[in-house]
Amino acid sequence: MYSHESLIRVRYAETDAMGVVHHSSYIVWFELARTDWLEARGYSYAEFEATGYYLVVTEIGARYLRPARYGHDVIVRATLTEPRSRGLRYDYEVRHGGTQEVLITGFSRHILTDHQGNIRKFPAYMWETLQGPKET
Amino acid sequence: MYSHESLIRVRYAETDAMGVVHHSSYIVWFELARTDWLEARGYSYAEFEATGYYLVVTEIGARYLRPARYGHDVIVRATLTEPRSRGLRYDYEVRHGGTQEVLITGFSRHILTDHQGNIRKFPAYMWETLQGPKET
Amino acid sequence: MYSHESLIRVRYAETDAMGVVHHSSYIVWFELARTDWLEARGYSYAEFEATGYYLVVTEIGARYLRPARYGHDVIVRATLTEPRSRGLRYDYEVRHGGTQEVLITGFSRHILTDHQGNIRKFPAYMWETLQGPKET
Amino acid sequence: MYSHESLIRVRYAETDAMGVVHHSSYIVWFELARTDWLEARGYSYAEFEATGYYLVVTEIGARYLRPARYGHDVIVRATLTEPRSRGLRYDYEVRHGGTQEVLITGFSRHILTDHQGNIRKFPAYMWETLQGPKET
Repeated sequence: MYSHESLIRVRYAETDAMGVVHHSSYIVWFELARTDWLEARGYSYAEFEATGYYLVVTEIGARYLRPARYGHDVIVRATLTEPRSRGLRYDYEVRHGGTQEVLITGFSRHILTDHQGNIRKFPAYMWETLQGPKET
Repeated sequence: MYSHESLIRVRYAETDAMGVVHHSSYIVWFELARTDWLEARGYSYAEFEATGYYLVVTEIGARYLRPARYGHDVIVRATLTEPRSRGLRYDYEVRHGGTQEVLITGFSRHILTDHQGNIRKFPAYMWETLQGPKET
Repeated sequence: MYSHESLIRVRYAETDAMGVVHHSSYIVWFELARTDWLEARGYSYAEFEATGYYLVVTEIGARYLRPARYGHDVIVRATLTEPRSRGLRYDYEVRHGGTQEVLITGFSRHILTDHQGNIRKFPAYMWETLQGPKET
Repeated sequence: MYSHESLIRVRYAETDAMGVVHHSSYIVWFELARTDWLEARGYSYAEFEATGYYLVVTEIGARYLRPARYGHDVIVRATLTEPRSRGLRYDYEVRHGGTQEVLITGFSRHILTDHQGNIRKFPAYMWETLQGPKET
């Protein structure tokens, strides 16, 4: 319920001379996955920014278990693990699209700011969505 | 006089699974080289943008003769070949820093706009610099 | 028949401080589009490399008419315009996914090499595909 | 003695639509900084790979305190904090080149492998360097 999975095709430009995906590329995939997470709940990050907010990255971490390679499709699972009134934490898992082997795990933390850099609370309409479905 | 040479160290992240520099990385090097060209004449592109202008890329081209590799230092020579009142063209040559072999050639065209996207003329103070030294 | 269209979602990491997609990002999209073109004909570039070939970029060009922006979906149309026994040329057109406005046009040229860098001919089984459907 | 500082000029291509350096770009700077660290001790990572080794990234982390911006020069300080026989940990600090304000902190862990992916020990000649100067 709090998770969303994005299918990502490895780009040649994302590989490096070791013949595998460069370790910085996964950080970009995390970003795609949390954007897709938001969209799956009806929010476009582009529109969110247009209304005056930025979701600023304050921390990231990643553990590299096995590399992804060109020719792979990968699945990036993003899970909202800490919804806060002024920020969020997402956890990520990158799996091989075929074998389902876990390749990379990671997380990111974010704070919400306005375009002047002041920390802000999520607008009420959005906050409900971020807290997830009501228990019944 | 119209040229400037930038020394660039190949980054691992710029390589790809062929073991050489990815062809899109050179386009970023062209950008570094023309920024250095401007700085060598006393202009910071960052400050130029801050005064309300953008130098927008309208065309690029590149010919790939030999690849650069990780461990190489390369030299990127930028030459202003077409100073116009509302735009510029730069030509580029990427050479191996050791052997001086030419690896890549290219060019870029630019127009000057304000932050609303309207085409503008270079401010007079800058235009003189772009036209180069007076003949004597 | 010789064309293929790829749908690409603009990544935040592909934008720059002008608020639009950085001009080097389109070069990466061209690569995605020609890879998809190959796949639509039953070839995986990853497998092609694994059999001992590289399709090396020898030239690129791009004209930037209007920028793509974050929040856009774009369509990149790749067309094989010059099938040669030892190389290829593709032409590209990047359109806004909604308005269908043309944003960027471009091309790339490639030669076929083995992993030692020697120029090679396309294997016969592949050459037929690249030449396209037989006229009847 | 265990630290090295690299001066990095922010590239326009490293910025994003928030007007600051994209958070994935710092991960690439960490890589530059540890490469420079090695070179300051007489080792080229390119040559190291050529002798049959890879220094594989197994973990990274970064805390984003303040963003770097285009027009900044930044200093990235890399410190070897855990020399192990089969791996390393580096800590990083990114500072504004002018104000010396700390912008980003981070770390990376690495294991040493051969080109087949088997974990290896550092060759003796290198191990001494990595352990740093002898106490006297």
